[in-house]
Amino acid sequence: MIAVFESAANKQKIYGGENMSLIVQKFGGSSVANAERVFNVARIVTDTYKKGNKVVVVVSAQGDTTDDLIDKANEINPNASKREKDMLLAAGEQISISLLAMAIEKLGYPVVSLLGWQAGFQTSSAYTSARIKRVKTDRIEKELDKNNIVVVAGFQGVNRYEDVTTLGRGGSDTSAVAIAAAMHADLCQIYTDVEGVYTADPRKVSNAAKLKTISYDEMLELATLGAQVLNNRSVEMAKKYNIELEVLSSLTNAPGTIVKEATKMEKMLISGVAKDTNVARISVVGVPDVPGLAFKMFSKLSSKGINVDIILQSIGRDGTKDISFTVAKENVKEAAAAMEEYVDAVGGKSVLVDENVAKISIVGAGMESHAGVATKMFEALYDAQINIRMISTSEIKVSVLIDEKNADAAVSAIHSKFFDEN
Amino acid sequence: MIAVFESAANKQKIYGGENMSLIVQKFGGSSVANAERVFNVARIVTDTYKKGNKVVVVVSAQGDTTDDLIDKANEINPNASKREKDMLLAAGEQISISLLAMAIEKLGYPVVSLLGWQAGFQTSSAYTSARIKRVKTDRIEKELDKNNIVVVAGFQGVNRYEDVTTLGRGGSDTSAVAIAAAMHADLCQIYTDVEGVYTADPRKVSNAAKLKTISYDEMLELATLGAQVLNNRSVEMAKKYNIELEVLSSLTNAPGTIVKEATKMEKMLISGVAKDTNVARISVVGVPDVPGLAFKMFSKLSSKGINVDIILQSIGRDGTKDISFTVAKENVKEAAAAMEEYVDAVGGKSVLVDENVAKISIVGAGMESHAGVATKMFEALYDAQINIRMISTSEIKVSVLIDEKNADAAVSAIHSKFFDEN
Repeated sequence: MIAVFESAANKQKIYGGENMSLIVQKFGGSSVANAERVFNVARIVTDTYKKGNKVVVVVSAQGDTTDDLIDKANEINPNASKREKDMLLAAGEQISISLLAMAIEKLGYPVVSLLGWQAGFQTSSAYTSARIKRVKTDRIEKELDKNNIVVVAGFQGVNRYEDVTTLGRGGSDTSAVAIAAAMHADLCQIYTDVEGVYTADPRKVSNAAKLKTISYDEMLELATLGAQVLNNRSVEMAKKYNIELEVLSSLTNAPGTIVKEATKMEKMLISGVAKDTNVARISVVGVPDVPGLAFKMFSKLSSKGINVDIILQSIGRDGTKDISFTVAKENVKEAAAAMEEYVDAVGGKSVLVDENVAKISIVGAGMESHAGVATKMFEALYDAQINIRMISTSEIKVSVLIDEKNADAAVSAIHSKFFDEN
Repeated sequence: MIAVFESAANKQKIYGGENMSLIVQKFGGSSVANAERVFNVARIVTDTYKKGNKVVVVVSAQGDTTDDLIDKANEINPNASKREKDMLLAAGEQISISLLAMAIEKLGYPVVSLLGWQAGFQTSSAYTSARIKRVKTDRIEKELDKNNIVVVAGFQGVNRYEDVTTLGRGGSDTSAVAIAAAMHADLCQIYTDVEGVYTADPRKVSNAAKLKTISYDEMLELATLGAQVLNNRSVEMAKKYNIELEVLSSLTNAPGTIVKEATKMEKMLISGVAKDTNVARISVVGVPDVPGLAFKMFSKLSSKGINVDIILQSIGRDGTKDISFTVAKENVKEAAAAMEEYVDAVGGKSVLVDENVAKISIVGAGMESHAGVATKMFEALYDAQINIRMISTSEIKVSVLIDEKNADAAVSAIHSKFFDEN
């Protein structure tokens, strides 16, 4: 057994010879959506295997399977326990791994599929959003030693009660990186339906450019900000264990984007513009300005597991304050209800909700050493006559909240400002 | 842990008190085919629980799920390994157990669903037709102790390699009886889409009557003979561990048929007429009449796992013999090919295949002590001008092979002969 959270120092441990690499490949749901695509994946996998590599493949549920299962559940009980939801959803990858294994068999290669619990994924007990605690890789190693291609169900694991758990949205990326980390893989390839990481959404911005490399930190900001190429937790884990990731398309042969340590990379001023429309703004108006205000407010949200993103607090006026913050759209009802309660309790004025907003962000490790990056972004928005409603910054990103209807125009304007002028 | 194959003598062990019984209920795929039926099952289960019983529910995959999954597999690789087929099919019960658990939650009762491996089903390694070796009931007991209704995935288990296995057709019945045996349950109810065991197929024979009780042995003959009410292995296991079964409908409230030891029962002359059209006749013509003939022939079939049913051997003529036998239709190609090979090797004459046959059987513990039962059956067929092509008998059954087109007429004629005259 190799725990994920042990040091990854001894990297050549098992498969690091000159002639044989251990490669982890992850394929999302759209990559295995139907029989034709399953065979496409099978060919990518067996091509890698044919070259003398050990291959572990991590697969998500097929295309709409997860949504179909959620529909079935909602028809019966929209308030079903999270435990039973996980039990249900985990069937999705069970179907996709066995079908992929069958396709690989058809191509004439030795293969075995493994469920999360068989592959040794031990997780926390937080059903529907479990965290990987460790990966006991004994079974995977045994199958690799038998020269099998190993197909592993992403997104799922088992907790200490021997119950099936799932890792939440994008969890299969994390599954892949966790295996790569636990087994000191030489490369972890994340296959998706885009060719890599772009400076902006290539479907919206015509001159968006594919990045050859991007740092973990930039990728983290992009993932958080709704670029939806890679799951955030997977990038965090890759950074922690220094696992080189490649983001690439399962439908073309083009080289993708390498995600790795920033040290030796050219620091681009900004590496991308991201849009996130899964955001809503809640404003709590006229609450008494007393110590502990923010703590009391936000503890009500964190106790419900609701993450708050941008926070804006007005300066005091007449002994009261206004606080605005953003949450993901799926949490807006619950968050607003909590705030109504809070406002009633402390004698505040009102709670306002606006779901028609979008968050536009620029990300770049180069920002740290270049002044005026935020200014340039604001200028682009001013040129396009787009009003900024909230602003948030970190070392390597600037985010603004704007009206949702202006989101695409804002991305184009900002992208032109930074990339056309270069 | 309680091994299935230990003695069931200590029957009051866990739940045998006056006020609380342990009841195992099994529901087939049609009983949980859609949301409405899932709730119907949930109500049956919770009604049983409300009365103060401990309830373990065994469920099959929903309606057509298994067929849908098989279609998906065949699209990709009709010759997929049995291991991967089992991995795929086991997803079916995973979906149905979680949906049923959600429905029970909706009705407000505590429930937990368990997969085969979680419920402790340890099986042989024969993928797609594994045998239950034992049931480690620790987890089920723990959940019952927490007052949970326990919903268990039928049809599936795990072998000593920690691979998922399935039990083959009708395996969920066996799962239910195995739990009942391992836990010394007070009753094992097999819910199905008929109201019990009938003297003939009630859809075909208008005056078919529902039996109140039937012995294990009669039920075994009926199961083998295509009555398809209960899986054969489940009845064998129920007999071995003396588990009282009740066969009843999930759609009506009517009492079903109790399957139990014959000793104290009224011995009916015959308990039913069964039809099996999943049968084909193979005749091997003109093989040299030397010692070991039958052994050599049938060892070729048993080595392929093909079961032979009725066997008819002609008396010798010109130093050669003809041997006819029946097999299930799904085995007819493989069996015929093996016989072609055999005939070529020993210099026989030809192999004839007839798939348009049906096997009609009468079953009854009363036969042993009443002469003339077979004669009465033959008379009924003669009256209806139906030709008999092969005959086979045992202590409690008589089977005849006839043309498939006459099957329903034969059942009616025989049923009238025995039941109208009573």
